[in-house]
Amino acid sequence: MKIAILPGDGIGPEIMNQAVKVMNVLGEKFETETVPVGGAAYAAHGHPLPESTLKVAKEADAILFGAVGDFKYDNLERSLRPEQAILGLRKHLSLFANFRPAILYPELAGASSLKPEIVSGLDIMIVRELTGDIYFGQPRGMREAPDGPFKGEREGFDTMRYTEPEIRRIAHVAFQAAQKRGKRLTSVDKANVLETFQFWRDVVTDVHKEYPDVELDHMYVDNAAMQLVRAPKKFDVVVTGNMFGDILSDAAAMLTGSIGMLPSASLNAKNQGLYEPSHGSAPDIAGKDMANPLAQILSLAMMLRYSLNKAEQADRVEAAVKAVLKQGLRTPDIFEAGTTKVSTTQMGDAVVKAL
Amino acid sequence: MKIAILPGDGIGPEIMNQAVKVMNVLGEKFETETVPVGGAAYAAHGHPLPESTLKVAKEADAILFGAVGDFKYDNLERSLRPEQAILGLRKHLSLFANFRPAILYPELAGASSLKPEIVSGLDIMIVRELTGDIYFGQPRGMREAPDGPFKGEREGFDTMRYTEPEIRRIAHVAFQAAQKRGKRLTSVDKANVLETFQFWRDVVTDVHKEYPDVELDHMYVDNAAMQLVRAPKKFDVVVTGNMFGDILSDAAAMLTGSIGMLPSASLNAKNQGLYEPSHGSAPDIAGKDMANPLAQILSLAMMLRYSLNKAEQADRVEAAVKAVLKQGLRTPDIFEAGTTKVSTTQMGDAVVKAL
Ligand SMILES: CC(C)[C@H](C(=O)O)[C@@H](O)C(=O)O
Ligand SMILES: CC(C)[C@H](C(=O)O)[C@@H](O)C(=O)O
Repeated sequence: MKIAILPGDGIGPEIMNQAVKVMNVLGEKFETETVPVGGAAYAAHGHPLPESTLKVAKEADAILFGAVGDFKYDNLERSLRPEQAILGLRKHLSLFANFRPAILYPELAGASSLKPEIVSGLDIMIVRELTGDIYFGQPRGMREAPDGPFKGEREGFDTMRYTEPEIRRIAHVAFQAAQKRGKRLTSVDKANVLETFQFWRDVVTDVHKEYPDVELDHMYVDNAAMQLVRAPKKFDVVVTGNMFGDILSDAAAMLTGSIGMLPSASLNAKNQGLYEPSHGSAPDIAGKDMANPLAQILSLAMMLRYSLNKAEQADRVEAAVKAVLKQGLRTPDIFEAGTTKVSTTQMGDAVVKAL
Repeated sequence: MKIAILPGDGIGPEIMNQAVKVMNVLGEKFETETVPVGGAAYAAHGHPLPESTLKVAKEADAILFGAVGDFKYDNLERSLRPEQAILGLRKHLSLFANFRPAILYPELAGASSLKPEIVSGLDIMIVRELTGDIYFGQPRGMREAPDGPFKGEREGFDTMRYTEPEIRRIAHVAFQAAQKRGKRLTSVDKANVLETFQFWRDVVTDVHKEYPDVELDHMYVDNAAMQLVRAPKKFDVVVTGNMFGDILSDAAAMLTGSIGMLPSASLNAKNQGLYEPSHGSAPDIAGKDMANPLAQILSLAMMLRYSLNKAEQADRVEAAVKAVLKQGLRTPDIFEAGTTKVSTTQMGDAVVKAL
């Protein structure tokens, strides 16, 4: 099994080190290759996603990805900025299905900004479509407005679009995820305003016929944002488009108060996947050995489960993470009185030991 | 001063009755005209926004709007559904500036799903652009995909677009609102992905030169959704586009836990405005005299302040609302142990009495 390791920028390399340590004690044979991505790749090769990195990623069964972005690269033109690497990988590898769990570990219930009774036991899975929508829709750019009340004025524009097969495949993925969980799926759209999402609603409703055991409901995106704040535990699996998914998955992650704990997976039709923490590259704390490596380690667990078909090993890693939480070990981001503050390295070591 | 009264559907008429009662005891001379809108207008005239209603709205200095929508109309084709009336009024009257306060009244702190220390004293103003963006952008519809990996497949599509004058005028409105408040403005965009919002960022940055006393920061929409959950009190005024504003303003409103308290204003360049509660028509409790009329009454206050230039009267109405809260009067949506449960009518009467 070939694994591409893309540590990236900021805290990426240091949390990746911990995940690699964990990987190495599982007793499996993995062939790994480490390549730069994001700002690190720009620094080395002049592009955030150089051909050499893309090639390694394409040939791998799975990609373990750290995080990208650093203040240094903020003033580059957009096509060279670190986050373009993520968009490029998604597009080139057709990673259309993004799984973003929002789970609140009982030990960390206090970290949430929500009242304990609202969030304790939270366990939502957001399934976000990742290769379509207004993220990639052409045409887009700058022009003179061709019509409308401000005809002739300079304008920026983008195109939102979804074809039937794109909606169909993400709907199947989401219904199947719901079947393995609480059998409830909420499809989030804006069918009352957008043609794209009226079509989305129609197609999801049609795919539902193949999953009679799953309860489906449709919710407008503004209402979904409200319900996430009001009663998040009512959700089981949520499926939505790329743009709405970007916003809602981050809001859902933040409900837990411990985004340093949340992994994500982005899969294509061949189950090839990219696995990355839900948090960013946190350049302000990079190199200080204080970042939380658990989201990266849990991303490894997702990789074992989804792309490498090693569910038992995934269970082992997840159990080890739960064990260190139970032992009271906490990196600064999740520290509270009465627990033991540890560094990135110490946390990684503790997970290795728990294994 | 001419006021168009559009009660609408669901709880609209009963909460409007209370606002009208309050209006009538202010000792001002208003010329009012009441016309149907939404489902009620569809039932009477076959269209949610009939010419006759639009005419009255256009000729008024201000529109006091209740709420639209009812289960009965859910299966109408989209162009006839009640919410089209709102979109039509916004467009026909060029109501481009939407003000949506998210205020947590100290007496209602317990209603929030967030911890008291996170939300107590919350006072955010969301300024949402309301006549542009993907809500109205042409072209839009269904077609065969003209290009891309799914060329030839059926697709739904919409166009996001903003011209420079549209961004400029809403930026001015937002900077001026910030000047009257805490002098901090957060502009929310997705400049890292969307051409429209890279342009948005550039134009807002340019307008900022005229408001050196206001501190401006730019935030990506996914991050804004997170920060609203994590530390909402860090925001003062937020300005954003129509689509992001729809999502974020509802999330912000729900942070307070008492959306039955929140008014909104939608203004055009002549300060003509539409004033409506932030909540919906709640058809499930319609006609039961149990809806909260305070958002409607506070919408009247906003109308007095913004369109009718009667700031003192607005202050009086707002003070009366605070007084009834202090007296412990609560409609069922905000009721908690130790307070007095009252009906819609009783709440309206109490505000009248407090005046
Ligand atoms: C970095 C950015 C382009 C990206 C996105 O918008 O998809 C990020 O926010 C994410 O959610 O992975
Ligand atoms: C009813 C709907 C069209 C409307 C919108 O999306 O703008 C509503 O959600 C709002 O925020 O006023």
